[in-house]
Amino acid sequence: MNWKAVVKILGKLFLAEAAMLLLPIIVAGVYNESTYWGFLLPIIILICLSIPTYFLPAEGEEKKIYAKEGFAIVAFAWLAMSVIGALPYVVTKAIPNYFDALFETISGFTTTGASVLSDVESLPKSILFWRSFTNWIGGMGVLVFLLAVLPKENSGIMHAFRAEATGPNVGKLTSKMGRTARILYAIYFALTVIEMIFLLFKIPAFDAVTTALANAGTGGFSVRNASIGSYGSLYVEVVVTVFMFLFSVNFNLYYLILTGNVLKALKSEEAISFVLMVVLAIFAIAANVFYSAATAITSFGTAMRYSSFQVLSLASTTGFSSIDYNSWPTLSKGILLFLMITGGMAGSTAGGIKMSRFLILVKSTAADIRKMVHPREVVTVKFEREPVQQATINNVRVYFVTWVAILIIAGLLISIETYGDFLTNFSASLSCVSNIGPGFNLVGPAANFAGYSAFSKVVLSLEMLFGRLEIFPLMVLFSPATYNK
Amino acid sequence: MNWKAVVKILGKLFLAEAAMLLLPIIVAGVYNESTYWGFLLPIIILICLSIPTYFLPAEGEEKKIYAKEGFAIVAFAWLAMSVIGALPYVVTKAIPNYFDALFETISGFTTTGASVLSDVESLPKSILFWRSFTNWIGGMGVLVFLLAVLPKENSGIMHAFRAEATGPNVGKLTSKMGRTARILYAIYFALTVIEMIFLLFKIPAFDAVTTALANAGTGGFSVRNASIGSYGSLYVEVVVTVFMFLFSVNFNLYYLILTGNVLKALKSEEAISFVLMVVLAIFAIAANVFYSAATAITSFGTAMRYSSFQVLSLASTTGFSSIDYNSWPTLSKGILLFLMITGGMAGSTAGGIKMSRFLILVKSTAADIRKMVHPREVVTVKFEREPVQQATINNVRVYFVTWVAILIIAGLLISIETYGDFLTNFSASLSCVSNIGPGFNLVGPAANFAGYSAFSKVVLSLEMLFGRLEIFPLMVLFSPATYNK
Repeated sequence: MNWKAVVKILGKLFLAEAAMLLLPIIVAGVYNESTYWGFLLPIIILICLSIPTYFLPAEGEEKKIYAKEGFAIVAFAWLAMSVIGALPYVVTKAIPNYFDALFETISGFTTTGASVLSDVESLPKSILFWRSFTNWIGGMGVLVFLLAVLPKENSGIMHAFRAEATGPNVGKLTSKMGRTARILYAIYFALTVIEMIFLLFKIPAFDAVTTALANAGTGGFSVRNASIGSYGSLYVEVVVTVFMFLFSVNFNLYYLILTGNVLKALKSEEAISFVLMVVLAIFAIAANVFYSAATAITSFGTAMRYSSFQVLSLASTTGFSSIDYNSWPTLSKGILLFLMITGGMAGSTAGGIKMSRFLILVKSTAADIRKMVHPREVVTVKFEREPVQQATINNVRVYFVTWVAILIIAGLLISIETYGDFLTNFSASLSCVSNIGPGFNLVGPAANFAGYSAFSKVVLSLEMLFGRLEIFPLMVLFSPATYNK
Repeated sequence: MNWKAVVKILGKLFLAEAAMLLLPIIVAGVYNESTYWGFLLPIIILICLSIPTYFLPAEGEEKKIYAKEGFAIVAFAWLAMSVIGALPYVVTKAIPNYFDALFETISGFTTTGASVLSDVESLPKSILFWRSFTNWIGGMGVLVFLLAVLPKENSGIMHAFRAEATGPNVGKLTSKMGRTARILYAIYFALTVIEMIFLLFKIPAFDAVTTALANAGTGGFSVRNASIGSYGSLYVEVVVTVFMFLFSVNFNLYYLILTGNVLKALKSEEAISFVLMVVLAIFAIAANVFYSAATAITSFGTAMRYSSFQVLSLASTTGFSSIDYNSWPTLSKGILLFLMITGGMAGSTAGGIKMSRFLILVKSTAADIRKMVHPREVVTVKFEREPVQQATINNVRVYFVTWVAILIIAGLLISIETYGDFLTNFSASLSCVSNIGPGFNLVGPAANFAGYSAFSKVVLSLEMLFGRLEIFPLMVLFSPATYNK
């Protein structure tokens, strides 16, 4: 392991986080809040941590940087960022317990949106801004940000950028990666601003800005106790639903559209499958809740309104809510659970196992069964009209098995305490590894994660990191060989 | 597809089932029950179906028989056997509804043990005997029986024998397979008789015989409404617990012990892992229920008694119960759920994904992650001290993905009706695909499957067949290419 290169990049990342912490200070100034120290203290710590890394010899940075270093950079970056990013909550006493604050911060950066807070409306606006802003930062990723702002190409950051991006298939390292990162960030920024403008027509400026930030990262932190439902506005729900869809889309498709390849973008197998899945789920749930006596929804229009919002909230892994779906019938809950597993598209800010992994998993499994039943047939697996290599199929299968293992192990670990029932604990585990936010029962949309012990919160926090960083980078931390000479 | 060979073997199988149906007639004679026609009618149908197959030209039997034919024989054999095996219930009006009777029969043959009956004690003894006997027949498999009793080696039956056996790795076709089948059946028969003798010391002869039959197949049908708990006898519980363990063991290990290779048998990685898992689960659950206020278990000894019985009941996928574990804390339920997934060892009568598949899944995933993190290392996957081929790893992964897909799809399909809550439906689905019997809540150990609609019962029946036949043989039925010339 080339530790020098890793530490050098971490130093740059500390400065980036310090810069990001300046924004909530501005918010504190605008709303005349005395929360300055909550943000200044971590800024000072970050700068102090960053300074020594500048005196490290630079030559280590240029050579011997492999995927392993990329994994390590991402893993340490996200851990360090969260450990320090939790300080504003503790210093301002918004969340006095450090473990709770760390949970909230990791939940923010990983765009999970699971919260330990029951009354967010009583908190200072600067703290709520930082909370929503962590969703936005984590959505696109902090290494992408570094790659976009740094003038010189850096192979360590490029490896880390690949490790941080979501989905199974990311291209080779190229000298154009800085440009790619800038385009991605520009699209991300533009879409966020457009959503803010749409929201400004109906809700206060602060709500519009924070909602758009949390929506863009598919994080789902809201500044209202009853989430999006508190606005009671069909207009707001439609805007948020549309943008939850837009942020589940692979950003490469936006790049294709911007460069005139609209047809190619529209032919994306992943996008077509995602749209099909979402539309089917919306109609199935709408019909199910409409015909169910338990939900008290009497018009099909209302059923469609709640169904489309909730389907896109969970499929995009945002986790906003407009209604408590705990009272919905089992079929609707089952479909929502399925969406919580698949998640959005690769290369989006959404979580879950990703639509492309899901498709490769289904297609390769079907092909292998076909080969077994009809051994003399030649069966090839294609995705996006290209044959899929066996290494990719293997990678996706390993990912799925590990993902299921994490889901079960974390579900068991948080069951050691006697807090949650079966559905609560295992939906909490699923919600965290898929970076969604709400689950069912005690962690449902009308509830929060405050009731869990510190141990369970640490387990769930780790699970959120495993989910957001897509498992493998964190494995570097747990491998003894990483620390051998 | 060589249909002639398939149909010829099905004809022999019909005669075998007719012979098996003679046993409950003897039971009816002993207990002076007027249920003869319930068994004579299916015997007559089976003989009538069998006769024309004898006039099929024999030469088709000897050539062109591949794995595909083996799959087809197993799939059609199990379907036909169940369709006709359900008749005794309907004719005797023990279960007047045919779909319910079919569910009970498939549940019996697949050794699931899920029941639609709430009061078994009111049924005729001959019907109860047939019900427990289906567990015994299905445990070892009906093609193994054919292979054991037929004098001449038949490659169709040999392929089908391989398709019917449980677990990932079955040896090549050899001329010794008839002998192997006879040894397997002899061990199976001997162990069943030994259990009967042990049970005779404490419970009535009829109960001892039926309990041993259901236990041997790891089916779990009981002739008492409160299952094994109704005897209220520690002795009976210990005997049943020990035999639930013995029938989860790979039968090849018994063969090794019988031929003097005791040390080799004791070194089996699968056996050691299974024992380790079971012991850990027993202690974890005992401690959990002992310290939990909700269970009202005040002595650690009592906790160990219930824990060891229930752990082995679910790990062996038998599904007997001695207590209603629905009131147990979440951690205990989570551990039971985990055992319901892994199941017993390959080559045993137990269900689940099997311990060997589980181990290969875990080891190959760990190895692939290691390769990803440390690309220059050479990592090989070993199981039972032999390197595992990539084809086997692939096969196990495909199995697992398909298994999860069946679990989720069936769970969703049975949620279309509004009967069960979330945990009921998905534990019912898991219980059926793993061939266990009870699940949680409305399908818990104190309840049954009667409340589901006919549609849901068909879905769950298919799932039981998928679980018992380990997915691939049934895929032949659903593949259009099977029916092309």
